[in-house]
Formats: sequence, structure tokens, C-alpha cells
Amino acid sequence: MMSGATIEGPTALSSSFLGEIRQIVGAGNLKEGEAIAALDYGVAAGNLGATAVVLPASTEEIAAIVRCALAHRVPIITQGGRTGLVGGGLSSPGQLVLSTSRLNRIVQLSPIERVAVVEAGVTLQSLQAASAEHRLEPGIDLPSRGSATIGGMVSTNAGGISAFRYGVMRHRVLGMEAVLPDGSIYSDLTRVVKNAAGYDLKHLFIGAEGTLGIVTRIALKLEPLPAATATALFGLPSVAAALDVTNSGLAVHHGHLRAAEAIWRSYFQLTSSEHLWSAVDYDPNHPVNLLISLGGGDEEQLQMELAQIYEKVAEKYPEISAVVAASQAQEAQLWRLREDTDLIYRKHAGAPSYDISVPLSEIDSYLRRCLSELHRIDPQFDPYVFGHLADGNLHIVLNASAANMPPEKTAAVEAVLYGGIAAIGGSFSAEHGIGSKRVHSLRETADPTKFAFMKQIRAAIDAASILNPRKVTG
Amino acid sequence: MMSGATIEGPTALSSSFLGEIRQIVGAGNLKEGEAIAALDYGVAAGNLGATAVVLPASTEEIAAIVRCALAHRVPIITQGGRTGLVGGGLSSPGQLVLSTSRLNRIVQLSPIERVAVVEAGVTLQSLQAASAEHRLEPGIDLPSRGSATIGGMVSTNAGGISAFRYGVMRHRVLGMEAVLPDGSIYSDLTRVVKNAAGYDLKHLFIGAEGTLGIVTRIALKLEPLPAATATALFGLPSVAAALDVTNSGLAVHHGHLRAAEAIWRSYFQLTSSEHLWSAVDYDPNHPVNLLISLGGGDEEQLQMELAQIYEKVAEKYPEISAVVAASQAQEAQLWRLREDTDLIYRKHAGAPSYDISVPLSEIDSYLRRCLSELHRIDPQFDPYVFGHLADGNLHIVLNASAANMPPEKTAAVEAVLYGGIAAIGGSFSAEHGIGSKRVHSLRETADPTKFAFMKQIRAAIDAASILNPRKVTG
Repeated sequence: MMSGATIEGPTALSSSFLGEIRQIVGAGNLKEGEAIAALDYGVAAGNLGATAVVLPASTEEIAAIVRCALAHRVPIITQGGRTGLVGGGLSSPGQLVLSTSRLNRIVQLSPIERVAVVEAGVTLQSLQAASAEHRLEPGIDLPSRGSATIGGMVSTNAGGISAFRYGVMRHRVLGMEAVLPDGSIYSDLTRVVKNAAGYDLKHLFIGAEGTLGIVTRIALKLEPLPAATATALFGLPSVAAALDVTNSGLAVHHGHLRAAEAIWRSYFQLTSSEHLWSAVDYDPNHPVNLLISLGGGDEEQLQMELAQIYEKVAEKYPEISAVVAASQAQEAQLWRLREDTDLIYRKHAGAPSYDISVPLSEIDSYLRRCLSELHRIDPQFDPYVFGHLADGNLHIVLNASAANMPPEKTAAVEAVLYGGIAAIGGSFSAEHGIGSKRVHSLRETADPTKFAFMKQIRAAIDAASILNPRKVTG
Repeated sequence: MMSGATIEGPTALSSSFLGEIRQIVGAGNLKEGEAIAALDYGVAAGNLGATAVVLPASTEEIAAIVRCALAHRVPIITQGGRTGLVGGGLSSPGQLVLSTSRLNRIVQLSPIERVAVVEAGVTLQSLQAASAEHRLEPGIDLPSRGSATIGGMVSTNAGGISAFRYGVMRHRVLGMEAVLPDGSIYSDLTRVVKNAAGYDLKHLFIGAEGTLGIVTRIALKLEPLPAATATALFGLPSVAAALDVTNSGLAVHHGHLRAAEAIWRSYFQLTSSEHLWSAVDYDPNHPVNLLISLGGGDEEQLQMELAQIYEKVAEKYPEISAVVAASQAQEAQLWRLREDTDLIYRKHAGAPSYDISVPLSEIDSYLRRCLSELHRIDPQFDPYVFGHLADGNLHIVLNASAANMPPEKTAAVEAVLYGGIAAIGGSFSAEHGIGSKRVHSLRETADPTKFAFMKQIRAAIDAASILNPRKVTG
């Protein structure tokens, strides 16, 4: 499936090119051969398949690198934390990887404005830590926070657990600086939410996975960090019941809903049994489990809100289970039931995974249809399903290893999961992007006008195909 | 200043072109001559300067009109409510105005998803009314709600009073359908917040003022409509004090901040004296007045929150005044002090007005500098200043009629107000857009790379310059 990432053209870099790059960044910041092998390749070894890796320290150095690469027709693969799941960072011989790891400064953090200006290589976790000193948070969170960079999260339009409340990365970005494929510097580092001064072209770079420009600095909105949180796990009979709980969470009087994460039965049984988790009166066989977290000023009041939600929902659905975390340790245990997805891949090597956005009113019928049709493809299929219920983002992972999936079976599964998803107002790729892995699916499922328009825009911006060639639009 | 809107080329439309358009929409939906004069031109008579006005009823009709206009090289000026303040809708002989007024259906309104799908010509007010039936609201509000259309608000990336909380129009749009300059239909009507399926090119049409495509349908996020609201007016010594009140409003435990509108002294004195507004112990001479509104479940609790804010702020600034509205009628009276901007224009015909975004930490020094430098240009200048404090959007209107402003004086004023605004992270055009009136200022103040990139994108998308020529980028 990664064949879309294979690049034609020279599979080496000329010594004159490498010499010029060395001039720009200093010899120590251009890695080749053994020195590349010493770097952390992140999610996939193929991320570091390039001939050389350059580590610039400034926007000006990046602009100079791009101009040099353009002159020599060398493709640039920009990489942040190398945590992407769809092969957006894969590189091959003859290419240059540009790592943003040295662009790691928080340039400005204003508590009055609730805005941070950061370089692209700052990790989410370090921005979270710096924001927390002012009782603020970035308004976006995801499990790879320790390595995922803000630049990478902008380039992939990252989502995560708070998107229903604070939006995806696109909605967090106020201003941006980026290097265009001709090596010029696009400078629009506003720190205001209102800006109607012409086309807002920074949105071209958001979610473009490094194909239209290289994001170098970002001004981001921050949000108040609540003084207290409270978390409960509900065992529920249906998606409708889980949406009822979510709506009650959205309507609390004290504090606000921070997360509403759904865990369907088979995934819940996997994580709860592996972590030996159980609770008195909590039946592990509910069709859907919902983890909800509230944030606010006072933990006790938040726990009372959770108790009230339980009472209200139990009136309508008497068969539910619920447990409220009584400590931060218990809260962390409940979150592990949702977040420890590694358990799946340890059991099923390379299990095919999907990342679907479904409008809330369509989740139930979508899942019913898919599960029944998947069962028809292979009666052994009992996929792990979990995700961000409040925004309709479902993660669906097959209980099958990659080795057991011939291409035609994979194609049949995709036809089930992606078929009609646009017609019901959803998206076949919610938050992981397209990279190399999903190029063929984008081509097959996108509105033809939309897909042609993407290619037209890309050709207009990067006529020489210097930036991350073959990714996203193919 | 409107000279940028003058279009070269034929100043009439051929009968063959008009005949083809009549074929598409029916004779009754193509207006010429007298029939145009009977239409409401909105903010400026020049909006209806075109030879003909077409009123299509569907996306397909619009696509056919665009293909026909392209073949005949006739410019199309798309219009919604004709409420724009910067001449984005101005039209001239030889052009075709395309009105979205017949695209006025709310296609879908889902309380479960909290999403509406509307045609472009639906007014904000009718969407507000339809949403309110489900105790929802569009999350965006502005005084021209009765005539402003959703399509127009998308095309201008409208802001208003709720942007600090719910974002600007760009942040409200989930999905879109639009007609491209070649007459093809871009279809991306997703109803989900997470969509990483390739470039999100709908953002090109948002805020493009009808120059890159014609927005035909929009899927919009809705927000819960609070059961109760409470409003107070504070008289304060400084911007710092007003930001303190705003922050206290953001941190209330019951409900949430809905609006924080600042009214500087001279505008306050104008509206309060014209409306004969006064309140016991409310000193009308405070440097800044701040109108704040809370929304939540219980009016009494919200009013208690306002009283607590007063007590907290009065400890720090003992000289403040405050009045809490005791009824909806009093609430409306307070809002009139902020919103009745017509009073200015009745006193100073065509008073030059500016719409600036300033990062919160820069507002005080920005205003001090500007007021002092304006005073140096003309000692009679005592501008009316008011705006959306929580997002830093200042409206500045000169106490001078257009007749008293020779071009070099206007240029000097712009140099003061726009000078250095990008360097401090703001924007010279916050929410009104560029239209024809601000083209020269955009050209003069924009980052050259950014401006060149805008022109490059426009040329790539609309090579024949069919859509709203000369607007925005010139």
C-alpha cells in the first residue's frame, strides 16, 4: 500500500548539493549514512529512508535549503515528531529529510492574550508544560504528545479528544510563518482571531502534510486550564444512550465537558482484561462504554455533576453500569482502557486501522451496516471500535494481522468502510491524514471536482514538485 | 477610493448572453433597467450598478450561469444581503450581479448533531429563528442579522460579538458546496469537525468575497442557546481594568461570557446623550465603558456573578461605576448604547471608519499612539472608538464628514492607524474585509510574499477574471 511513496529520479544526492546544504546549516547539522541510523525513526523505519537529513535552526536556513533543493531538483520531506500513522513522512534515496527538531523555541507566551507563538519543532508536551505555568492549555491533546510537534500537528490538522469543544488544529491557529516551494517566506504571524485582510492562505498549509509549504512558526490560541477534573466510565446499551450521556455532559452547570470517548465492547474487553480492570457492579459486556471527563473549579462539584448524569440516564436506561474515578490514579486507569491501543497491534501485527468521521445522527446506522458487511467478508471479523464520540470520530481496527490481508480483501474492507461516507456527510479520513497510505482511497472516494482542484492548486504552488512529492494527491 | 472597482471592457451585455441567461433561470429571474431600480441596493447604490441582475434558484443554475459568463467573458458580482461596508458588492455596467436571494432554504437542521445545512441566501436572522426552536444558535451574531446572508457572511468571514468564544465564520463552517470559476461544482458538504481527507480547499472561498468561487451551500456548527442572559455596564478607568472585567467574565462559575463590548468615552457620550440614557451613580465620563453579557441556566445566578465581578473589580479600582440590567428592556437599552452606530453617520456624513484587530496586550499602547498622532494631524480629531474587547477588534470612526477629508489627509490617517499593525501581530482589516475600499491599503501594508501569493492563487483559480474582478487583490 505504500507504493505511492516510491519516487522516480536519481537515488543519490550530488556532492555539490550536499556541500551547499552543509554551507547553510553547518556540517554537524547534515546527517548521512551511519549518522542517520542513529536517529529515532519514529513510527516507521521508512521515515528515514532518505539519503540525507538536514536539521536547520531557523526560518532563513529553511528558506535557503528550499532554494538550493529547487535549483538541484531535490525533493524535501519535512518531518516533525515522526508520529504520523499514514506514511506522510516516508522518504527514499535521492530525497532530503528536513527535520524541525532544532526549531524548538517557544517564542512568546502571553497570558493576557492567551496566545503562544512557537517554532514548528516544539512538542505538544512542552507547550502544554509552558502553558500550565500560566494555568492555560493548548486546547488540543493526543496520546503522542511527547513527540508530536506543533508544526507536524498543524501540517496534519491534528484532532484528538478536545476537538468537539475547541476544534481541530486548524481552529487553534491564529497566525503562521511558512517557507513556500520557491524559498520565499510567507509571513502572517497575527495573534488575533479576526483577520479579514485578504485571502487567509495559511489554511492551505494546514493539513497539507508538507506538500504546499514548510510551516516554521505558529501563533496558537490557548484555553484556561481547569483547576479540577472528574472522570466517569458508563456502560451503556446503545449509541443513542452514549449520545444522551454526552449531551448531559455538554449541559452541566458546573464546569464543562472535556472528553467523551466511546469504547465498543470488543476493544473494552481487550483492554480491561489485559489491564485486569474491573469494578463492583460494572458489567464488562455492555455494547458501548463511554468515558467522560469534566473540567472545572471544584472536583467535588464535578463528581456531583457526574452522579446527576448517572441518575438521569439510569432512569431512561435502568440496565447501565457506571463508575466514577475517586482519585487521579483511578482516573488514569480509566483513561488507559481507552488509550492503550498498542494492545491491539501486539495481538494482531500490523492490524489494518481506519479513522472515520461520521455525523452523530449517522453513527448507529453506519456502524450497524459496516459490522454486518464486514462479517460477510470474513465471519471472523470482530473489529475493535473506539473513538471521540462527541465529534463522531471512530477508530476501527480489524482483529486481523496484516499478513492475513490479501490486497483484494483489504479493498473489500475499504469499500465497506468508505462506501457512502461522503454521502452521509462524513469523511473517510478524520484526523490521521492521507500521507502515502491513503492516496489511493482519496483518489477513489473524493468528489472528482474537489480532487482535481487539489491537484490544480498543488501544481500552481509547487510546479517543480519539490515538497513531499507523491504524498496526499499522488 | 472606489476607483479600484472601475472595470474596463464592454459596458453593455449582449442580447445573446442575456438570452442564454434567461434560458437558464426563466425570464422573470433576470432583471434589467427599471426592474433593477425596484430592488433594494442595501448599503450602497453602487451595488446595483450592473447591467443585469440574475436570481438563480439552485446550484445547477449558478453553475450554468458561470459557464455562460465564462464563454462570454462577463464578470459576475455575487451578492447576498448587500450589507458589506467596504464595497465588495459594487458593480458596474457590463457586469452581471448574481443574487443568492432565492437560495433561501434551510436544507437540514439536526439537533442531535447541532449542525445546520443551509443555502447561501438564508439570512442570519432566519437561521437564528430556526435554531432557537431547538434551543440552539449559530454562534455568531451581528447587527445586520436581518439582511446579512450566511453565504455573504462566509464570503466575508464575518466576525461579530461572539468571535472570542465561538470563532469567526471560518470556524463555524463544517462543509461547503461552491461553484468554481469554470462552472464546475465543488462538493464537500461534510457535517463533521474532523476531516483530514486532503487539502481543505473550502477555506479558499471563506473570506474571498466572491472572487474565487460562488458559495452555494454551507454546513454550519450550532451552539446551545442559553436559557437566561444577564447584562451589566461598567464604567472603568483604563483598558487594563476593562480586560480585568473581561477575564472575570471568562472565569464565571455559572454560565459563560457571551459578550464583552468596549465603548470609549466620546462614543459613549454620543449614544448615551442621544438616547437620554443615565443611571444613578453612573458617571458618564469614564475613559472606557464595558458592556458584558453572561448566558446560562438561571438569570438570578448570572446577575449574582455580575455583582461578584463588580465587587472584585471595585476592590482594585474603587472609582468604577456599574449598572446591572434588571429586565430585558434595560438589557436592550444598554445594547443600544453600543450598537446604534448610525448616530455617528447622522452627525458626520460619510465619516471615515476603520476596523482594526489588535492583540489584547497591545490595545492600550496602540490606542494611545494613534489618538496622539491623529491629534497631531488635526487637533479637532476625537474619534469614536468601540468594539469587541475580548477579541481585540476595535472600530474607530473619525468625527469628521467625508467632505472634510482630502485624500492626503485620509492617507495620513491610514498611515497612523495601519502603521506597524502587522508588526504587533494585529490586522488592519478585522471583520469587514477588503472589497474595493481597502484594496490599496492591502497592497500597501501586506507582507509582499503574502500579497504576491494571493495574486498567484487567484490567477490559478480564475484565470479569466470572471469573479468579482478588481476586488480584494486589485
